[in-house]
Amino acid sequence: MEDTIVALATPEGRSALALIRVSGPKAIDIVNKVFRSKDLTKVDTHTIHYGWLYDENDPVDEVLVFVMQAPKTYTGEDMAEITCHGSPLIIRKIIRTLQKYGARPAMPGEFTFRAFMNRKIDLLQAEAINDLINATSEEGYKIALKHLRGDVSKTIRQLREKLINLTSLIELELDFSEEDVEFASRHELLSLTREIKNMIKNLLDTYETGMALKEGIRIAIVGNPNAGKSTILNALVKEERAIVSEIPGTTRDYIEETFFLEGYLFRVIDTAGIRETTDPIEKIGVERALEQLKKAHLTLYVYDVTQMTPEEVCKHIKSLPLAGDVIIVANKKDLLKSRNISLPTCYPAILISAREPEDIEKLKQQLINWAKANYSSEGVILTSERQYNYLQQAYQAIEEAEEGISNNLPQDLIASSLRAVIDYLGELTGEITTEDILSNIFANFCIGK
Amino acid sequence: MEDTIVALATPEGRSALALIRVSGPKAIDIVNKVFRSKDLTKVDTHTIHYGWLYDENDPVDEVLVFVMQAPKTYTGEDMAEITCHGSPLIIRKIIRTLQKYGARPAMPGEFTFRAFMNRKIDLLQAEAINDLINATSEEGYKIALKHLRGDVSKTIRQLREKLINLTSLIELELDFSEEDVEFASRHELLSLTREIKNMIKNLLDTYETGMALKEGIRIAIVGNPNAGKSTILNALVKEERAIVSEIPGTTRDYIEETFFLEGYLFRVIDTAGIRETTDPIEKIGVERALEQLKKAHLTLYVYDVTQMTPEEVCKHIKSLPLAGDVIIVANKKDLLKSRNISLPTCYPAILISAREPEDIEKLKQQLINWAKANYSSEGVILTSERQYNYLQQAYQAIEEAEEGISNNLPQDLIASSLRAVIDYLGELTGEITTEDILSNIFANFCIGK
Repeated sequence: MEDTIVALATPEGRSALALIRVSGPKAIDIVNKVFRSKDLTKVDTHTIHYGWLYDENDPVDEVLVFVMQAPKTYTGEDMAEITCHGSPLIIRKIIRTLQKYGARPAMPGEFTFRAFMNRKIDLLQAEAINDLINATSEEGYKIALKHLRGDVSKTIRQLREKLINLTSLIELELDFSEEDVEFASRHELLSLTREIKNMIKNLLDTYETGMALKEGIRIAIVGNPNAGKSTILNALVKEERAIVSEIPGTTRDYIEETFFLEGYLFRVIDTAGIRETTDPIEKIGVERALEQLKKAHLTLYVYDVTQMTPEEVCKHIKSLPLAGDVIIVANKKDLLKSRNISLPTCYPAILISAREPEDIEKLKQQLINWAKANYSSEGVILTSERQYNYLQQAYQAIEEAEEGISNNLPQDLIASSLRAVIDYLGELTGEITTEDILSNIFANFCIGK
Repeated sequence: MEDTIVALATPEGRSALALIRVSGPKAIDIVNKVFRSKDLTKVDTHTIHYGWLYDENDPVDEVLVFVMQAPKTYTGEDMAEITCHGSPLIIRKIIRTLQKYGARPAMPGEFTFRAFMNRKIDLLQAEAINDLINATSEEGYKIALKHLRGDVSKTIRQLREKLINLTSLIELELDFSEEDVEFASRHELLSLTREIKNMIKNLLDTYETGMALKEGIRIAIVGNPNAGKSTILNALVKEERAIVSEIPGTTRDYIEETFFLEGYLFRVIDTAGIRETTDPIEKIGVERALEQLKKAHLTLYVYDVTQMTPEEVCKHIKSLPLAGDVIIVANKKDLLKSRNISLPTCYPAILISAREPEDIEKLKQQLINWAKANYSSEGVILTSERQYNYLQQAYQAIEEAEEGISNNLPQDLIASSLRAVIDYLGELTGEITTEDILSNIFANFCIGK
């Protein structure tokens, strides 16, 4: 029998109220022992009870107790939740008193772990709960919510069911191998395998979007020294953290700043000016800047519109090791003598003065449009490395199966590849688990969840 | 009709859960508008409901809703409490959604204010709730709990009822003043007045204890430079904040540190070495040290046992402007050549080496014994300046009444004094209130309480 666990579920600190959770076969019984006002073991489930908690003869606090009997609870076990006055001293006292009567302090994520073990949620939903609590951006929150609602689980369960049917047919053939029968039409088999492969591929493709939405879209700001990169960075994050100065090469290392635009989290990586240099310290800065470039989803190439021609800009960008998209920011339009100026055409370009709030708004709008075009939280989206890894292994196994079927390999080889896929998908949702996976996942949770 | 208020009741931050409170005539109705799973306006009071909150068509979070109908609620109004995932983003979303449907953000203490206005608690209990949340010491917590249970309110209400009876009798005499009747026997009157005066006096006398238990017992550590005061302070607070050094006069200003011993909160005031000096900066230090002495409940007089005779110690202590008790700490016993040493007898003295953990334990025990002998949280204890001031005014008025009765003054003068006492006591418990008093009290609360 599981033991009964207790934990503070709300943040530490002083506040109006704090909520203490108790879960386990003796949850209601233990709380009842310290609750004086009525017999909680005799009340209906999902009811609220006012009264005083006592540690033997000493009153501890005036509380509300929420009684929820299994199985319709978060953990699937009997639960009692207590709202007490939000004082660290009182919280400590109540938890200690409950320990005295047989509850033990919960480990991180233990309530959710029990919910998983009691099949209230699957592993993807458990991960979603943690993502939800830690979501910093609107878009990341939306994805976590979808996972919590079970949208991803459903897609994967459907994939897996199809596979199990398919594999059973092939395994049936193995039983009759002497007779050379074919229960599963090879044609049908191939088309089902390909369908599943495509579904996995599509899910895998959402991972980059998922990570960008969850952890933020990485933008690198590059360009020659004194082009206005730091000024633009400051304007975007509306803080004066980076040192804005007229001396070339002031921003030697890269700085990471984050900001939100319409629910998107952006991580701006300011990089040291990229240019030929002999200064050894500056050289390190240039190298780091180039590294950042490769990781960026989007590069903002900033140049001083009075100093470079469109051709020079495009040539410089071409020389950079870029991985993602580029937006060219032609800065210092306030220093232009003529209004007739041609902008580079190799990438979308915007003419601004970083000192003009209106122009910064224009730049922000450009970023929003780009984000919307590239990252949408619509549909089912992967957000965890664990999920990605299992799906990738499943993808390799299904490719093997596909090849096996095409090349008419023996059924047992095909069946073994398909079983591998089924196992990977089962591990993904938690239908198959190992202790390692579980402890890894739940250790990242906060206590009380 | 009151409007409906909403606030986060648990601390800001990421956690397993957060609790949002809604109170007011439309509380259940408003929450019902964003809750999709069932009709909360049709459910029984004090029941718990699982489901999803929606902002129009967008799911916001998976929650539990606690429905509590008036009048058996904290505020005395209809209430709905929501536990959601503990993410600042989600909390903000839920509160905004509830605002959209007609709730408004609560002001600090507004839930408790409503509880008071609906006569769920009196003013002393309201103050106790705030004290309870902010209690840092075990003893302060115990007193707040007693106030919350209404022990103080009961004592004061009893006083006031007796007074009202008494005063009515005298006022009755006024109506029959032509006839020179005496409904209230002057003898009985005098004895009742004295009884009430004593009860008020006893309550007033608890104020110092109440403050010491609530805000901490103030200890001053004084003695000549280099006697080991900073070492003792550090040992008591178990932190190395004060600079411990061999150079006389190092601790120039006073430092406040706090520590707990068996539920008592001690505020240790380390003072600059008190001695004759010509250094102007040091002189300021000496003056401040003397000021602190007057405020201390207890003075620890520390001296180097190898440097001063018991007579010198007692003479020095006599020269100090002490208000509270004194414990003499004869330090540096490790430097003594002989074990035969006489300690001062003018105050309790303890021989220690500040470097010996065992000796520090002995010193701590001495402090605990002293605290227990002087400050007990037994009985009814005043802890608020507001309460003290009203009681003091009540005391002056009852003294006037007593004098009036003794000197056979006209009934109307006596009655007016007694009415003043009744009013002061009424203001104390909140039976009589002004807007100023109320806003002062509740402004100190946290939001959500």
